Amino acid sequence: MNLLHIKVSPNLFGSASREVSDYLVDRLKVKHPQLNETVLDLSQEPLPHLDGFTIEAFFTEPEQRTEQQKNAVRLSDRMVDMLFASELIVLSSPMWNLGLPSVLKAWFDHITRAGRTFRFTDGGDKIGLVADRKVYVVMASGSAFSNGPYVSHDQFTPYINVAFQYVGIRDLNFIRIDGTHDPLTRDVAVPKAISSVDEMII
Amino acid sequence: MNLLHIKVSPNLFGSASREVSDYLVDRLKVKHPQLNETVLDLSQEPLPHLDGFTIEAFFTEPEQRTEQQKNAVRLSDRMVDMLFASELIVLSSPMWNLGLPSVLKAWFDHITRAGRTFRFTDGGDKIGLVADRKVYVVMASGSAFSNGPYVSHDQFTPYINVAFQYVGIRDLNFIRIDGTHDPLTRDVAVPKAISSVDEMII
Repeated sequence: MNLLHIKVSPNLFGSASREVSDYLVDRLKVKHPQLNETVLDLSQEPLPHLDGFTIEAFFTEPEQRTEQQKNAVRLSDRMVDMLFASELIVLSSPMWNLGLPSVLKAWFDHITRAGRTFRFTDGGDKIGLVADRKVYVVMASGSAFSNGPYVSHDQFTPYINVAFQYVGIRDLNFIRIDGTHDPLTRDVAVPKAISSVDEMII
Repeated sequence: MNLLHIKVSPNLFGSASREVSDYLVDRLKVKHPQLNETVLDLSQEPLPHLDGFTIEAFFTEPEQRTEQQKNAVRLSDRMVDMLFASELIVLSSPMWNLGLPSVLKAWFDHITRAGRTFRFTDGGDKIGLVADRKVYVVMASGSAFSNGPYVSHDQFTPYINVAFQYVGIRDLNFIRIDGTHDPLTRDVAVPKAISSVDEMII
């Protein structure tokens, strides 16, 4: 069984999201001894923003692509191949400014590919081409967003939901590390997330 | 009067969002003859994803920053200075995969700066430090999102609302170019957006 572990936080030695997702993967490895983990660390491999040339290559039939266009789609194809190759996904990220860090949005821009991870029906609707699979989303936020005055400001969670749904993945399991900078919650944020993992991985 | 015109689409010669925002700015220049336009073209100046070093520099008191840290914050400071210097903002962007193109999220990651564009109260709440000003948001989407089955999938608009509000800006005026790829709407999407501009700028 293949696990894709996507890490985003650039804080390599003090990141709550990395701490909890590493703990989660350890628990999953105990549960699935044959588990084969592939780490995609977006802080170490920051994906470029898509440019016009690459987008045009996306929408050119593969057999009609020039050498330059083949090169342009190679990175995105690698990201899509990693997605298809993984039965289990752990996505570990901080919330930045109420949404995704830009490098994580760049990942979604690279894996959302017409003809590879979704297609259009004749009527213009979209159908996901990635068979459903379990995704654990470990999200750390400085303020608390699971309750209190800021619940509606969380634009991370709703985006993750619709973006994975877009390609066909609905089995999303969120583990919040809620309020890592808030005096009221920072001491319990990680321990609470750890116990959520313990409850999920039995 | 200063206008900051932020362009995102990498499609330089066929972009609906560029076409409509250029038209809007022309109309604004007629209305405000002294208008001074600064263009920030994020497709030509793709902002980097924030990294650990830069974030650490953000949270280091200016007078204690090393030379390297001063360099690291320079780009973000320039983006923030441009924001403060502009009484009027036109943001022109496509929707990508139901959200912001990653380079536009990188812009928000660069301008959302504790101590410059927002601050924390003692209780941990956030207060925007950018005085309110008028922002026109010209957003083009391949499918229609202003009505029909996909309304709730639009994660572009809600993010823009909370992200600008975060720094203190609430006067947001959306101009949708809705369904540029949808057979039912593509022929009217731009003309309808143009007439929205005409109604707004009287």
